[in-house]
Amino acid sequence: MKLSKHSFPHFDAVLRKNAKAVERVLDDFLSLMPCEREIIRPERLLRAMRLGVFNGGKRLRPFLLLETAALFDGDADSALYVAAALECVHCYSLIHDDLPAMDNDGLRRGKPTLHKIFDEGTAILAGDALLTIAFDIIADEVNGLSAQMRSSLILFLARASGVGGMAGGQMLDLVAGHSDEEGIIRMQAMKTGALLRFACEAGAMIAHATRENQKRLAAFGRVIGLAFQLVDDLLDITENTDVLGKTAGKDVVAGKITLVSLYGVEWVRRRLDLLIQEANNILEPYGRKADLLRKAAFFISCRNY
Amino acid sequence: MKLSKHSFPHFDAVLRKNAKAVERVLDDFLSLMPCEREIIRPERLLRAMRLGVFNGGKRLRPFLLLETAALFDGDADSALYVAAALECVHCYSLIHDDLPAMDNDGLRRGKPTLHKIFDEGTAILAGDALLTIAFDIIADEVNGLSAQMRSSLILFLARASGVGGMAGGQMLDLVAGHSDEEGIIRMQAMKTGALLRFACEAGAMIAHATRENQKRLAAFGRVIGLAFQLVDDLLDITENTDVLGKTAGKDVVAGKITLVSLYGVEWVRRRLDLLIQEANNILEPYGRKADLLRKAAFFISCRNY
Repeated sequence: MKLSKHSFPHFDAVLRKNAKAVERVLDDFLSLMPCEREIIRPERLLRAMRLGVFNGGKRLRPFLLLETAALFDGDADSALYVAAALECVHCYSLIHDDLPAMDNDGLRRGKPTLHKIFDEGTAILAGDALLTIAFDIIADEVNGLSAQMRSSLILFLARASGVGGMAGGQMLDLVAGHSDEEGIIRMQAMKTGALLRFACEAGAMIAHATRENQKRLAAFGRVIGLAFQLVDDLLDITENTDVLGKTAGKDVVAGKITLVSLYGVEWVRRRLDLLIQEANNILEPYGRKADLLRKAAFFISCRNY
Repeated sequence: MKLSKHSFPHFDAVLRKNAKAVERVLDDFLSLMPCEREIIRPERLLRAMRLGVFNGGKRLRPFLLLETAALFDGDADSALYVAAALECVHCYSLIHDDLPAMDNDGLRRGKPTLHKIFDEGTAILAGDALLTIAFDIIADEVNGLSAQMRSSLILFLARASGVGGMAGGQMLDLVAGHSDEEGIIRMQAMKTGALLRFACEAGAMIAHATRENQKRLAAFGRVIGLAFQLVDDLLDITENTDVLGKTAGKDVVAGKITLVSLYGVEWVRRRLDLLIQEANNILEPYGRKADLLRKAAFFISCRNY
């Protein structure tokens, strides 16, 4: 299965269409600014939150959530709200990860990072407020989901993002105590994988898929999460800063051990092929209806930015 | 009504008892570390979260939540979970506010602040993870609350903490654009008031108090929030660093305009008396049953740390 990365016209179109739809929801939430009583609009914070969100992202996590919901004929409008919330969590994590005290990156998607445009304090607060508004968006009944569904989604999102998920993974990555394959994979499953897994599982939940189907989609999310991080590690070695839009070669400079530095580029490429095969096998019961998700998996494995 | 600040033996005992109860719940959540699958425990992050929470705090917000729930005979066990979640949000805000990029304070309750003990990256992540776990605790059905109640509490907590509440207030305080009474009061109502208001309103919600009673307790929370912040501004002027356990005189050094610098100490003391009177009036319908909340209001107005 050797396809060029430019052979998915339909996938590209849906990725863009979904991105626009989720950006409309995000625009609403970051314009109205949910609050209960008369307050002062913290204009600087709102500007920073908007810049942190409207940053030219591919909106891959929202795409996965929307298309897993569509796979089980879930309500697209409700799914859009949860997709927007998920993107807020993702964008908060990018803002905080880029801070000097963390990965210290001045460049993101070819543009200065938020703490360069504003300052560190504003960037920290913008991240905090984006994380907070994510739970606001899911908890608010205007999204049309039942109270039971809203609570479940919040619990799953909190676990995917918290000490046992993304935040914990970032901590492990910062202390870089892992140096074997299993340690690296587990750390990456927390740091990057948990949110991708949530995207796929949440889509199935929103659509009231059976528990077995929810588990299957969660497994799909886990596998493409592994692939996503492998590609990240590959790109850090093989591409330059111009192509990536963020600083290349950081892992080597930081002396960070990745599967690429442990086993080499060819091993990682073979492993990527196996992961994509595994992702396809997981989607097998859904036939052609899962084609967009298959293409997403392939897109992840051959993206170059 | 001139009482000495040491004249509340019963209040002090209940404050301590409630603090211990909520700390047991916090201890559970920060030991088990909620997560769904096999991961690596991020030990450093867990240690930082625990240090950020077990910091000798008075647990005033949990007290208010528990006692407003008790006023309407709410379930004490369920209220404890929400109180623990609220304290996580409060502790996260202290950790982030103390960072060099924000208020830059090296001292909190007489001890080095979290970024001094660990480093800034760990402190940022510990705050992030504490904010996240707060929503986990409320969303999890083990707290015995209905899905509808869990969703509502999460929505209210997110609004009290986010861009229209605490985080927005902190941003306004950092840029210090406010220099008149109304601007200062609104900023403080967001930064400090929103979470104290949530404590009182959430207690009434958990106990299924009528909407009118919920509003009344929210108003009580709003008023003691104003009092709390006035005392903070007073203490910054009148006390020294040893008594406060945090750096004194910061507002003057930062050239920050407060109601104390605008109108003087005596004006603020008179205003405090009026606020306590107002808080008492709000509690009037509840008779002796609200005595602990009355004492809490008085305690807030005459605390010296």
